[in-house]
Amino acid sequence: MGRLSALFDPETVAVVGATDREGAVGRAILENLRDGFAGEVVPINPSREAVLGLECYEDATSAPPIDLAVVVVPPDIVIESMRNLAAAGTENVVVITAGFAETGGEGAQRERQLREIAAEYDLNVVGPNSLGIMATSTGMNATFGPEDALEGSISFMSQSGAFITAVLDWANEQGIGFRDVVSLGNKTVLDETDFVREWGDDPETDVIIGYLEDIDDGRGFIDAAREVTDDTPIVLVKSGRTDAGAQAASSHTGAIAGSERAYEAGLEQAGVLRARSVQELFDYARALSGLPEPESDGVAVVTNAGGPGVLTTDAVGDSTLEMADFADETIDRLGEAMPDEANVYNPIDAIGDADVERFGEALEIALADPNVGSAVVVAAPTAVLSYDDLAETVIERLEAHDTPVVTCLMGGERARNAEKTLRESGVPNYFDPSRAVSGLDALARYRDIRDRTVKRPETFDVDRERAREILARTKRRTDNRLGVESMDLLEAYGIPTPDGEIVDDPDRAREVAASIAGDVVMKIVSPDISHKSDIGGVKVGVADEDVYDAYEDVVARARNYQPDATITGVQIQEMLDLESSTETIVGMNRDPQFGPLLLYGLGGIFVEILEDTSVRVAPIDEGEAHEMVDEITAAPLLRGARGREPADVDDVVETIQRLSQLVTDFPSILELDINPLVAGPDGVQAIDLRLTVDADELDTEEL
Amino acid sequence: MGRLSALFDPETVAVVGATDREGAVGRAILENLRDGFAGEVVPINPSREAVLGLECYEDATSAPPIDLAVVVVPPDIVIESMRNLAAAGTENVVVITAGFAETGGEGAQRERQLREIAAEYDLNVVGPNSLGIMATSTGMNATFGPEDALEGSISFMSQSGAFITAVLDWANEQGIGFRDVVSLGNKTVLDETDFVREWGDDPETDVIIGYLEDIDDGRGFIDAAREVTDDTPIVLVKSGRTDAGAQAASSHTGAIAGSERAYEAGLEQAGVLRARSVQELFDYARALSGLPEPESDGVAVVTNAGGPGVLTTDAVGDSTLEMADFADETIDRLGEAMPDEANVYNPIDAIGDADVERFGEALEIALADPNVGSAVVVAAPTAVLSYDDLAETVIERLEAHDTPVVTCLMGGERARNAEKTLRESGVPNYFDPSRAVSGLDALARYRDIRDRTVKRPETFDVDRERAREILARTKRRTDNRLGVESMDLLEAYGIPTPDGEIVDDPDRAREVAASIAGDVVMKIVSPDISHKSDIGGVKVGVADEDVYDAYEDVVARARNYQPDATITGVQIQEMLDLESSTETIVGMNRDPQFGPLLLYGLGGIFVEILEDTSVRVAPIDEGEAHEMVDEITAAPLLRGARGREPADVDDVVETIQRLSQLVTDFPSILELDINPLVAGPDGVQAIDLRLTVDADELDTEEL
Repeated sequence: MGRLSALFDPETVAVVGATDREGAVGRAILENLRDGFAGEVVPINPSREAVLGLECYEDATSAPPIDLAVVVVPPDIVIESMRNLAAAGTENVVVITAGFAETGGEGAQRERQLREIAAEYDLNVVGPNSLGIMATSTGMNATFGPEDALEGSISFMSQSGAFITAVLDWANEQGIGFRDVVSLGNKTVLDETDFVREWGDDPETDVIIGYLEDIDDGRGFIDAAREVTDDTPIVLVKSGRTDAGAQAASSHTGAIAGSERAYEAGLEQAGVLRARSVQELFDYARALSGLPEPESDGVAVVTNAGGPGVLTTDAVGDSTLEMADFADETIDRLGEAMPDEANVYNPIDAIGDADVERFGEALEIALADPNVGSAVVVAAPTAVLSYDDLAETVIERLEAHDTPVVTCLMGGERARNAEKTLRESGVPNYFDPSRAVSGLDALARYRDIRDRTVKRPETFDVDRERAREILARTKRRTDNRLGVESMDLLEAYGIPTPDGEIVDDPDRAREVAASIAGDVVMKIVSPDISHKSDIGGVKVGVADEDVYDAYEDVVARARNYQPDATITGVQIQEMLDLESSTETIVGMNRDPQFGPLLLYGLGGIFVEILEDTSVRVAPIDEGEAHEMVDEITAAPLLRGARGREPADVDDVVETIQRLSQLVTDFPSILELDINPLVAGPDGVQAIDLRLTVDADELDTEEL
Repeated sequence: MGRLSALFDPETVAVVGATDREGAVGRAILENLRDGFAGEVVPINPSREAVLGLECYEDATSAPPIDLAVVVVPPDIVIESMRNLAAAGTENVVVITAGFAETGGEGAQRERQLREIAAEYDLNVVGPNSLGIMATSTGMNATFGPEDALEGSISFMSQSGAFITAVLDWANEQGIGFRDVVSLGNKTVLDETDFVREWGDDPETDVIIGYLEDIDDGRGFIDAAREVTDDTPIVLVKSGRTDAGAQAASSHTGAIAGSERAYEAGLEQAGVLRARSVQELFDYARALSGLPEPESDGVAVVTNAGGPGVLTTDAVGDSTLEMADFADETIDRLGEAMPDEANVYNPIDAIGDADVERFGEALEIALADPNVGSAVVVAAPTAVLSYDDLAETVIERLEAHDTPVVTCLMGGERARNAEKTLRESGVPNYFDPSRAVSGLDALARYRDIRDRTVKRPETFDVDRERAREILARTKRRTDNRLGVESMDLLEAYGIPTPDGEIVDDPDRAREVAASIAGDVVMKIVSPDISHKSDIGGVKVGVADEDVYDAYEDVVARARNYQPDATITGVQIQEMLDLESSTETIVGMNRDPQFGPLLLYGLGGIFVEILEDTSVRVAPIDEGEAHEMVDEITAAPLLRGARGREPADVDDVVETIQRLSQLVTDFPSILELDINPLVAGPDGVQAIDLRLTVDADELDTEEL
């Protein structure tokens, strides 16, 4: 695949299927191109001599060299047109035509052919079923939408064409500009990951935004986005968040519903800021495209109105930011500059008769404070305050201090002109204090994303060959499941398990128990019996002298419960001190888009009821494993709340990393649960295990 | 206090302190009144003959009869002016003047005088420190703000004057109208509860909205709002939600910071819809002021654009509503009416070439479905769709079916005219699908508020006299605390406690233990020792024959730990089956605004760490007690999750109600915790108790 920049910077654009028929898509695109594009526009249509006054060619091979072709021919001749374009040396194609995979049957077949041709000729293909693309730098509007885009630094991709037309209509009214716009269509060849990479390399793109209904290759997207977000923020609306929404998305684009938790974790790991609505998308993008980076999380609020000041303070409390704690000098300076009735503590209330001068002074003093990383100017309309002048003052102060400032000039018509002045200097004005703060919050969160270092996942010294042999045991089973009899799998990957073993006669049971210090736990081991406790198949605190009888008893109970059950034996395990420990769970299941999804949480009965868990896409580094442990609500339990002795959290963190390595090494492991993983002051112990293995897949995995 | 309607419907309004000095507040108010008010306007100022061409009077007694006086004189003569007004028979006064309690010292003294005069003469007083009031029905703008309000059916109160000017400026641009507007100021006499009552009685007010920083009398507000919300929805922004916000509110209006949890519970019990931002306030108010009530929670989505349809579906998933499950007939009808490529399942995607006709047909078929309680029309701009015509069609369909419909006509300028048409018929158009759904959600939540029946709290047969005697024990103590030795307090109110008693010699211990079936639990009882377990002061599972020694042992350990501790004795308690039970907590503390705040939650170590608790303002009825139990995340534990035997939830519910009665009967109980309250299949048992009593208050309480 060639460099995508050629898509956005062609010298010659052909419209394959150009026509002058009123209302036709092939006309709309040609008109859009003719009216604004700086380069040459070439209509292609074998049944026309000229279209809209432009010389028309029979096909690509007879036309001048084409850098970008926009294909609008009927679905059944798209493939032929593509071959013709490839033969003519065209490398970049946008397929507008619909009637591909989204219609099933024949369409799906066509989409496969399209993919093959693209691979064969190394073509960059957008679509099919796309509204088209735009590049404002050359005035190129290669869409059939009714709106042009204004020039700007936001690059925008969307899996919905209608979303683009709706957004542009509104953005034009608001004066918000774009760099490149792409309607992704069916994403047969080029997808979100390709454009994220492209715009990450584009120095003129300040922010990447998008509307997505699915992500084709979750892991690839994470890797690409992580690199890109070192320089360029990415804000996405990923719809289909709820069950109902996912179902609707699936009928709209045929998106396979990956789990929302996987998207949540994956996008967070990718460094993407996720917006929940169109409004949030632009509230974030406006802040990210024009403002400097905040150096700290302290926010100063400057207002002429107490109530809105309180609302702004609440919004700061809701965000990841905090109200700046002013230095003494700041308080003193404000005290001198402001009238007696003013509040010189944060939020600064310059009171109702504040004019622009006083506002400017308050802002100046606040921005000079070393504890202030950003500021919000919140104003209510008064007779003595000119919003237009306030806008100028805010811009001056921002530029003098290189500190981000957003505004909330409350009101309607009277704020419009000031809003425009601010926008032209990159300062977003928001309708309401909570949205203003959310803009600053996006800036701070992006700074944190940029600052974070994701390390290469640690590679522990493990016995991979042995693990493979253990996993191969599934071949002897019909249900692909392994259980507690395969705890040695964990040992092979250095995850601690209690002393003990599985025995199949009572004398051996006695021997093993004797070799373990203290009393033991005994559990029936049978692939056919799930709820071992319920049938009396578990005995806790068995003294050595009782082990023989206990063995006979648990086996008898199991036989009694289910006469035809396969009984592997009885597990003899050391007793753990559960009083000072916490039961946790570590597990993994595979997501269709993101692959292995690790889960950590509070174990036992609480897993199901409280759902207090954290997830990450594997493989993960140490920092991410730490986050997983810290994120759960019950984290303080492990850290030693209420006078308990703290658990060895480092051991938990290492166990999660080792599990990450195991499931990354063996894609054949479809799901796996260690429940409970008991975490105490002396470390962790995996007590029980269940996993499902795809034995055929296992054979294909190289060591 | 007279009827407040006189405030909003005076025939004669006087401005006390009227002046023609440029920039003076007394001039701004007079101008506002002169320019719009339908009645007579009377300036009062002893040093003027005429102001702005109106005859001016020396004082109220020399003027014609005044129905409403607006006072703008300097703070030191406000009291004198009030006396003069009272003498002249004026009953309604708005005090604009600032410099009262908000400035402390002398101002606070003035505020007390103001309150006294109002009480003495039975005056309705708004303010002081108010922007004024408006009543659009008579064109009365008795504020000094720069904006008039449009006529409408929303009545609006605000504890911030600036909030009013900001909102009006914007609302005028949006065409949003108001009925009455009140700037509450310091709320010395009239407060939020008074206006809620007044507007609840006003047939012309469709919705009450407000911005509040505190609520003076929480219980009074709940009672008034409950009645009003039977007919009129109330939407409030209560700021100071966060710690930082509460601090800012306190420095703005001197509001005492009540706990956010108390406000959350109290406003919910009051039936108030709480908005978190200015935007949400009006998103809700616009839906509530013009639309019919949804008969069910099923939402139909009709769109011409797949992506926005998915976003809308997500928003429905986030709300209390659900996507309507269309009847077979609806699917059939849509299948006939729509093109093949359309999606006839909800969300209905009439696809990109849908014109108004097709949109109208889809909406008509959806609204005819019995499972549809409301609908959202979401449109992206296309060449074939006229938003103006779509607006007309939506209004027609809505009126034909009397079912609420909101719209999201995406885009900018091209939606303006349609938006106006819709607004004039009471249909709110929203910028973004998520806001459109939140409007419908407010409608459905208000319907549920109206449908709920709050019963009179149940009165159990209790031994109030005995409870009082037990509470009086605090008089013998210096720290006002009672503990486990006062478990008989719970017995007096019918809350079960385990068998047993507190004894002070080992022989008696043996006797008590013998009278209890099975082993016993023994605990040291000492007001000076908090962590009894830590010092070995608790013994569990003591057999009868070991009781004597155990008694001596726990006492010895306590003495050893703290030689000067008062030792009340040793509690001998029956052993409970804790295996099949759940430890919960029931408690109460007093909030400065709302009074007794009941708390219920998961007990033990989880209370502090998981904070899985629910709260309500007491007294509560059975339904509210049930809600408290059902609301906590761990509720399924009690309901018998994971094969556990369910606890007797009715007993838990009754215990919460009995506690509600106890703390309502005795305001002298400042705080109380039953922790744990063990809930099992056989009912509940209160195991431990701590409470704090105001002994002086106790003496004033009547039985």
